[in-house]
Amino acid sequence: MYDTLPQAHFDAELDAVSARLLAMGGLAESQLSQALYAITRASGETASQVLQLERRLNAAEVELERELWAMVARRQPTARDLRLLIAVSKMVRDLERIGDEATRVAQATHRLLAHGLAGPLRDPIAGIGATGALALRQLRQALDAFARLDVALALAVLRSDETLDAGFEQLMRSLVARMGDDPRSISPGIDLMFVAKALERVGDHAKNLAEQVIYCVKGADVRHTPMDGVEALVN
Amino acid sequence: MYDTLPQAHFDAELDAVSARLLAMGGLAESQLSQALYAITRASGETASQVLQLERRLNAAEVELERELWAMVARRQPTARDLRLLIAVSKMVRDLERIGDEATRVAQATHRLLAHGLAGPLRDPIAGIGATGALALRQLRQALDAFARLDVALALAVLRSDETLDAGFEQLMRSLVARMGDDPRSISPGIDLMFVAKALERVGDHAKNLAEQVIYCVKGADVRHTPMDGVEALVN
Repeated sequence: MYDTLPQAHFDAELDAVSARLLAMGGLAESQLSQALYAITRASGETASQVLQLERRLNAAEVELERELWAMVARRQPTARDLRLLIAVSKMVRDLERIGDEATRVAQATHRLLAHGLAGPLRDPIAGIGATGALALRQLRQALDAFARLDVALALAVLRSDETLDAGFEQLMRSLVARMGDDPRSISPGIDLMFVAKALERVGDHAKNLAEQVIYCVKGADVRHTPMDGVEALVN
Repeated sequence: MYDTLPQAHFDAELDAVSARLLAMGGLAESQLSQALYAITRASGETASQVLQLERRLNAAEVELERELWAMVARRQPTARDLRLLIAVSKMVRDLERIGDEATRVAQATHRLLAHGLAGPLRDPIAGIGATGALALRQLRQALDAFARLDVALALAVLRSDETLDAGFEQLMRSLVARMGDDPRSISPGIDLMFVAKALERVGDHAKNLAEQVIYCVKGADVRHTPMDGVEALVN
């Protein structure tokens, strides 16, 4: 019953798990980038593709999560290996949730297209493209940081979250202003607010991913730690 | 290195884990119920207490999650026990996220109080109280279902999610109407929309909790079934 395979074999299994996580990250990335294309270019077809991708991402999550627990149950990993597996398990969830947010963007796109994209909302939609590009960059950097176990890059992701939050606040203000000017823009404006919120959350998930990279490398759980505390720990 | 303690001892550990999950559930429950009190009674003091509770809930999550993985690593749980541990791990996350949503409600309350609760929004705030009470009931039922491993009650939670979603839709419509009537209500109205959304998500998390109860119990029913048979049943 007890596993007698050598550590080298376990290392190969860990590498395979990391590769699968990165593949899942690639799926989340393309889902988000297609969702941003769909909403900024008013493409219902692309929005539908995003909803298709969601199923693949969910299936990947269920499968990978099960594999992680089975690995831990099958073997008795060292503290360091266990740390990596726990971190991967948390990252799996964040990626799945990024997929959920991309799905929300795609659903909002369908609603906006059904009701006709209100002209006065063109500027906020461009703002959503810009904020979304930031969120996508944070996601890419977080995945790169994991692939290279690069703590400096992970810290850069944590820091850039402020820029994304500022972009979100600005979007909200501009949407409120449009809705005040023209009551017909209230209903589509609200859809755009939830889209903006979804992008802010993608940023939060990218931040979580980056925190897990720090946890893997340094062994410190920095999830509920203020930024200066994180920097002190890492440097 | 391998653990030689008898199954009875492991069962005691599992019971302790379940008790801790329920304690965490109690924290999430009181956080949500205080957040609802704060927003419906315009109590900034209670809103601040909600933010305090958040830290305790986060600490409980970090600790319990670590303990779960350590248990799996330390022992080699049977398929059934592993299933329970995985289910608990998922529930821990949902409870922590319910705490996040309660925190969002409390933060919105502070913003609403700072800007003065707009008179025309009294009705939607009452609606938030009613929808929130539904969400809280779903959470309580899901926790009860876990405490008693009661599949029928878990199924009732899954079913009641539709009522909550309908309440959310109605709230959104009434908020859009108010915002159209009076542009000054747009800004606080948006806060209330995010509050409504937070409550809808609490319902989603309660649904997730209920699904995990079903997963736990199905596993318990097939204790003496060979592993591939168990997987066929559960998948």
